[in-house]
Amino acid sequence: MISVNRRAASIAVRMIEECEALGIAVRKLKNGAAVLDGGIEAAGSLEAGRLFACACMGGLAQVGFGDKSYPLRDSSGDAGFWLPTVTVSVSSPPIACMASQYAGWAVKTDTFSAMGSGPARALFADEGIFRKLGYRDECDTAVLMLEGRSMPDEDLAEFVADKCGVAPDRVFLFAAPTASLVGSIQIAARSAETGMHKLLELGFDVRKVKAASGVCPLAPVSADDARAIGRTNDAILYGSQVFFAVEAEDGELAGMIDKVPSDASPDYGTPFDELLRRCGGDFYRIDPMLFSPARIAINNLNSGRTFRSGSINAALLKRSLLES
Amino acid sequence: MISVNRRAASIAVRMIEECEALGIAVRKLKNGAAVLDGGIEAAGSLEAGRLFACACMGGLAQVGFGDKSYPLRDSSGDAGFWLPTVTVSVSSPPIACMASQYAGWAVKTDTFSAMGSGPARALFADEGIFRKLGYRDECDTAVLMLEGRSMPDEDLAEFVADKCGVAPDRVFLFAAPTASLVGSIQIAARSAETGMHKLLELGFDVRKVKAASGVCPLAPVSADDARAIGRTNDAILYGSQVFFAVEAEDGELAGMIDKVPSDASPDYGTPFDELLRRCGGDFYRIDPMLFSPARIAINNLNSGRTFRSGSINAALLKRSLLES
Amino acid sequence: MISVNRRAASIAVRMIEECEALGIAVRKLKNGAAVLDGGIEAAGSLEAGRLFACACMGGLAQVGFGDKSYPLRDSSGDAGFWLPTVTVSVSSPPIACMASQYAGWAVKTDTFSAMGSGPARALFADEGIFRKLGYRDECDTAVLMLEGRSMPDEDLAEFVADKCGVAPDRVFLFAAPTASLVGSIQIAARSAETGMHKLLELGFDVRKVKAASGVCPLAPVSADDARAIGRTNDAILYGSQVFFAVEAEDGELAGMIDKVPSDASPDYGTPFDELLRRCGGDFYRIDPMLFSPARIAINNLNSGRTFRSGSINAALLKRSLLES
Repeated sequence: MISVNRRAASIAVRMIEECEALGIAVRKLKNGAAVLDGGIEAAGSLEAGRLFACACMGGLAQVGFGDKSYPLRDSSGDAGFWLPTVTVSVSSPPIACMASQYAGWAVKTDTFSAMGSGPARALFADEGIFRKLGYRDECDTAVLMLEGRSMPDEDLAEFVADKCGVAPDRVFLFAAPTASLVGSIQIAARSAETGMHKLLELGFDVRKVKAASGVCPLAPVSADDARAIGRTNDAILYGSQVFFAVEAEDGELAGMIDKVPSDASPDYGTPFDELLRRCGGDFYRIDPMLFSPARIAINNLNSGRTFRSGSINAALLKRSLLES
Repeated sequence: MISVNRRAASIAVRMIEECEALGIAVRKLKNGAAVLDGGIEAAGSLEAGRLFACACMGGLAQVGFGDKSYPLRDSSGDAGFWLPTVTVSVSSPPIACMASQYAGWAVKTDTFSAMGSGPARALFADEGIFRKLGYRDECDTAVLMLEGRSMPDEDLAEFVADKCGVAPDRVFLFAAPTASLVGSIQIAARSAETGMHKLLELGFDVRKVKAASGVCPLAPVSADDARAIGRTNDAILYGSQVFFAVEAEDGELAGMIDKVPSDASPDYGTPFDELLRRCGGDFYRIDPMLFSPARIAINNLNSGRTFRSGSINAALLKRSLLES
Repeated sequence: MISVNRRAASIAVRMIEECEALGIAVRKLKNGAAVLDGGIEAAGSLEAGRLFACACMGGLAQVGFGDKSYPLRDSSGDAGFWLPTVTVSVSSPPIACMASQYAGWAVKTDTFSAMGSGPARALFADEGIFRKLGYRDECDTAVLMLEGRSMPDEDLAEFVADKCGVAPDRVFLFAAPTASLVGSIQIAARSAETGMHKLLELGFDVRKVKAASGVCPLAPVSADDARAIGRTNDAILYGSQVFFAVEAEDGELAGMIDKVPSDASPDYGTPFDELLRRCGGDFYRIDPMLFSPARIAINNLNSGRTFRSGSINAALLKRSLLES
């Protein structure tokens, strides 16, 4: 059986050995848990962000950097722009993206609060999604990723250890704020995961997804986390494209494909930051159908047909990522 | 001396250790041979396809994934499409592509028949091409790739062992049908090989090729192998581009360059599937000059000049890969 | 502390083990120093060039290959061309690019003369730049890269050992001429370094650069080193684009950004080869402000703003890289 925690732990061990070159700070807590700080006090690096994303998918994906040119056809005289990109190639996408990478665990103690993602979720396996996936991990080590600005402490490590059924000294905690280099990268590495989650929202059995690849522009780092949430979401919603190979019926794909990309939502077209302000900062008032890749292609392995929908919104990317 | 089998075997051993994460099924045959099933009964994965291609080139190439946008200038209103791509960077191209990767061994026993490619060919070294290459491998291990849907068995392993002069328990057999994820990837990784083979067909001494890189769109997986043969060939013929560095005379390159890309063939422009039907399913009635990359650039190390020819046929790619 | 020499030495050791597959020749000198010839007598390979660049940046960067299409809007009827590219993602850019990769050591003995780059510079640490970087390496091993056509010998190894304070048998010398495959690749891997150096020339404190990525077309190999210098410079000056993340003031970036790309120089627009001839072959008469990436984007981590300038000059790239 695939153990996403065992696989991620081996990436964590390698990162700890290479911490100086990676620009991460490693802190051993009193109870033996290890904190890998990729952006709270440390500067992080491109490679630290890449490995953060690899570990977050339980070592089941290859993550790389590229770049993309975005031509513009507007009247501004601007011929276009370019951005670095983050690409992912995912094996076992239901496990890698849904049982591991998805940020589904709102971790909260008296002193700490952050969204948790990564392999440890598959040990706790408390979320409803695990019933649909038919997967949970068994491992004596837990690896959790925390998107936030407070430094994980002993209490938090013990809380995580307890929920995951492991000893505190077998806990690895990765931490990076949204507004950090590592934060921007690990979010840009969520293109395929965002597509998987949208399929789930549309009632599709995501276990049918056999392979997934995706690419997403890297959002330049923002000055604060609130603005970073806007920008990194825009990078996914208006700039990411994913390719899935599934075993399904053409009928269900044909009926669903136009609902998958972000442009299927009435909230499409407004920068995420502005949208959130309109909703009084309440995430849950934003249309859940908006959280999607910009563009998707689904290859049905059963029929050989490919279903495509969506497009890149270069004008919005420029406005949000480069001019805000 | 470079041993493509020893190098490929070390990739095979790593794949066996990682079989669950790679989505491949490993079967130990009674005579000790190992079968790595990447798509017959197993689902495979993007990474399994990537490693299949690496091993098929004797570990002499780096294989990666990217993506490419294909603009269209047609009247359909369709602004274009995109596809994942497979990129290769090849060291020692005559050995990697011709002595190893080329599918030149029609493996046939009473119970089994498939096209064989990969390092084991360089042990058997029965094909005429080996006289031109001046290379054959010496190794106690044989690694053979089989493109087909029948599961390799003991008889086949023994047949291969016998031809390669190794013990049956030193045989690794990779298997994946054309219509599978791994099949699509390992074929898309043949861009440079296709260019090398075309140069050979044109009478060029391929030992003069010192470096090769290539990129090819990943053909979405087809419903059956017959249609997959059409699509994967179209991906190469109409979508691949290769860059070679050679030591040659400008004269021979100038005289040859326009004959290298697929558009030099009168059969160019018809989807491969249709062409095959026109020829009554007889592969050998198709113009051998058609089997070429879409686009090539050859840098002559002796003169510094670069010779270029061919172009990407986005309209045909769309029709064959995405709309058939 | 990060030791760029220790990190580079581990890459060198791996390359020596793989020398045949990499197409490099390894020569052990009488005093125990190791010479890795990537293009003087050996042919080299794409992968050898990639690893040369990795080692040259002290193992602090990921280097990869891609490809880029260059559309043309000229009246020639030529719709455009494509080239392989070299991409870099750099951790600790001041150390990787400036203390290590920059070719700042003019190595000269009675019998040998070449531009030296790579980690050994950070042991010698004789250049003025090291005062600005606040970094020097401490290591019993020295790794130096030499761009030239004469084979490093015992005298040179002893000279380097002496300057770096290591034993001659702890010296690794990488050598490759400009006009070689490895030469072309290791120069194309200097996109981020060129940007860092330009920032330094403009008086910017490069220690503020926290991350850097870059991409540059691979210049086809030229027939001789003089012409290769022209082409590889043009690839950087007219084809490279870099993305930096810095901690700075918006004011200093706003005041500087338009001066960073090569188009800020009055010498911009003339192929480097021609420019050098106009200057009577005297490098130092060329405007130092010309040595820059074609296009740059700087993300200020302090403010979240991104500053952009420059553009790709496809017409000049075509003329210099493909038609000269």
